[in-house]
Amino acid sequence: MEEKVFVLTHKALFEEGLALESGRFIQPLEIAYETYGELNPDKTNAILICHALSGSANAAFWHRDARKPGWWDVYIGPGKAIDTDKFFVVCSNVIGGCYGSSGPTTINPATGKPYGLEFPVVTINDMVNAQVKLMDYLGIDKWLCVVGGSMGGMQVLSWAFHHPDRVRAAIPIATTMQHTAQQIAFNAVGRQAIMRDPNWNQGNYYGSTPPYQGLAVARMIGHITYLSDEAMNIKFARRLREKEKYGYDFSIDFEIESYLDYQGDSFVRRFDANSYLYLTKAIDYFDLSSEIGPEQMEKVEAEFLLISFSSDWLYPPSQVEEIAKLLESYNKDVSYCCVKSDYGHDSFLIYNKQQERLIKGFLEHLMSEVEK
Amino acid sequence: MEEKVFVLTHKALFEEGLALESGRFIQPLEIAYETYGELNPDKTNAILICHALSGSANAAFWHRDARKPGWWDVYIGPGKAIDTDKFFVVCSNVIGGCYGSSGPTTINPATGKPYGLEFPVVTINDMVNAQVKLMDYLGIDKWLCVVGGSMGGMQVLSWAFHHPDRVRAAIPIATTMQHTAQQIAFNAVGRQAIMRDPNWNQGNYYGSTPPYQGLAVARMIGHITYLSDEAMNIKFARRLREKEKYGYDFSIDFEIESYLDYQGDSFVRRFDANSYLYLTKAIDYFDLSSEIGPEQMEKVEAEFLLISFSSDWLYPPSQVEEIAKLLESYNKDVSYCCVKSDYGHDSFLIYNKQQERLIKGFLEHLMSEVEK
Repeated sequence: MEEKVFVLTHKALFEEGLALESGRFIQPLEIAYETYGELNPDKTNAILICHALSGSANAAFWHRDARKPGWWDVYIGPGKAIDTDKFFVVCSNVIGGCYGSSGPTTINPATGKPYGLEFPVVTINDMVNAQVKLMDYLGIDKWLCVVGGSMGGMQVLSWAFHHPDRVRAAIPIATTMQHTAQQIAFNAVGRQAIMRDPNWNQGNYYGSTPPYQGLAVARMIGHITYLSDEAMNIKFARRLREKEKYGYDFSIDFEIESYLDYQGDSFVRRFDANSYLYLTKAIDYFDLSSEIGPEQMEKVEAEFLLISFSSDWLYPPSQVEEIAKLLESYNKDVSYCCVKSDYGHDSFLIYNKQQERLIKGFLEHLMSEVEK
Repeated sequence: MEEKVFVLTHKALFEEGLALESGRFIQPLEIAYETYGELNPDKTNAILICHALSGSANAAFWHRDARKPGWWDVYIGPGKAIDTDKFFVVCSNVIGGCYGSSGPTTINPATGKPYGLEFPVVTINDMVNAQVKLMDYLGIDKWLCVVGGSMGGMQVLSWAFHHPDRVRAAIPIATTMQHTAQQIAFNAVGRQAIMRDPNWNQGNYYGSTPPYQGLAVARMIGHITYLSDEAMNIKFARRLREKEKYGYDFSIDFEIESYLDYQGDSFVRRFDANSYLYLTKAIDYFDLSSEIGPEQMEKVEAEFLLISFSSDWLYPPSQVEEIAKLLESYNKDVSYCCVKSDYGHDSFLIYNKQQERLIKGFLEHLMSEVEK
């Protein structure tokens, strides 16, 4: 049995703030982050982990009193795919989030109250620009690699395309360059579920009852897209919960209903409804293909390892392949792999040997190149 | 330009009521129905149309003051696929619905108030058993054909398998023998959106504000599943509504958001939230494959025309094909056709030449067999 290693989230404060793509500012800017492992004297072994919608800076190891380790603990740690005996690993909470970085729950210095919707809308590129500040603060000149899945993968792409001189390699996983109409639709309905909850109150619910019901429904919709039809049939099929027959009422009949209910209700205890609006909006706005022209493509330097999952229908393999093809058309250094898995979009969060081997091998190769 | 032909919905009252699969009763039973065309002296030209979740008895022609003709007017009428010059066409509102047949909005004779959740939970087989009563009332011994898509297709299957002696032919369209976990999940989240709206009030909202917000969200979720990713990209892509740039706020940016919002908000003006619960529950409960053994399969007499649509991801072609394969394994008379269409599940409601030709040809062949 692995011994529990405890870690803390640090905070970096940037009084000068951050200018956003919208033309607005976050001032001051706070970034919550964690680091694992040691930065080497040449500062060439730093890896940035970018989290997905519901993630936090706690990517690995344990917080005291937590019931679970960090969200990617299966891949980050001594001897693991991202080996903390070799690499200096950094993970920060995105801006707009609710786990310590500046976001709608942050106290607005102008009013002394949480920002709520006064917090400016942020983009994926803004999230990355905030991470650039953290990088400078930590004295890192170039990431050996930037890694992340889903919304984290979008940040990885933003790093590689918009900050080519600061990224040696990139691992975007289960992600896309831009949302299609259907992908926007799922997020939009989640936002509507929150904003149509009377407790949302235009985002001013801090100090009163938050829009728990709306956020729970939004999370349930999300969960349908995270699991594949196959995964749901393996896990739940049409099994009834604690019953042998239909109840012929509107209480829970099926195990899948019970699962979604649980996911919805437990999410509201750990996530902020306004943050859900901000992060899904950032995802919907992300549109790398419209931002990047041939000139910018030429400047991209990173080596890429792109990973998709066979049963992911939120960001299907075809969308990851599209990124690979674009990069290949500019003769970039690209490996693309579609990992066979039944677990849908969630596959990237779950331990699997193929993803471990791909990431581990890629990082070892990078480190050997650097050490040459 | 076609001349508007006006029709009325009739009501049939069955004082003796209806016994349900749950063991409960609806008493009295009311059925709202429409008929088009004339029943021939031999009573061999009667076709039953079964409607989907949001449909009504008004399948074709016009109601006075309506903004649109009946929901399947493109396929039903003089000279159309279901030719009202040749056939006697019947369509009734399902029980549990909100368009005139017994349902949660009906006045409970015991209390003088709408049933609300006191109305018993009904199944697809119950809906069909109510239609059997209507059939007897109309003096029809055997339907020439029973036709319907989606939830309507489930009723068609229930007719063909549970009432084999009363159905000469069946056309189940874009449907399934049973919901998978994912299909249950979409319905379950819709129900949660309604039941978590404080205005739902355990179904007792008649006379006060109904749970409009929850029902609108449920309908939006539904609409994502009715349209394919392709259809959404053709119709909306990432186009912005009345803007050239992102708004950087939480109002509507994308056309797809505006479409969903409109669909949600217009639905609540014409549909009852409790009915939404009853009908989605009936759909989730439907599980023909677990009900039907080899003995019952042997008794199935109907000729089948099964239709699916290439881009339907709610009831994908594979689920319709599964029905065809089951029937073929018992040497039944089955034609199965997957129609190419970009419009997703909604394809069955939209005019398309292939579906028209398939239905028209099948019905003409049936009639010529009967007339032999």
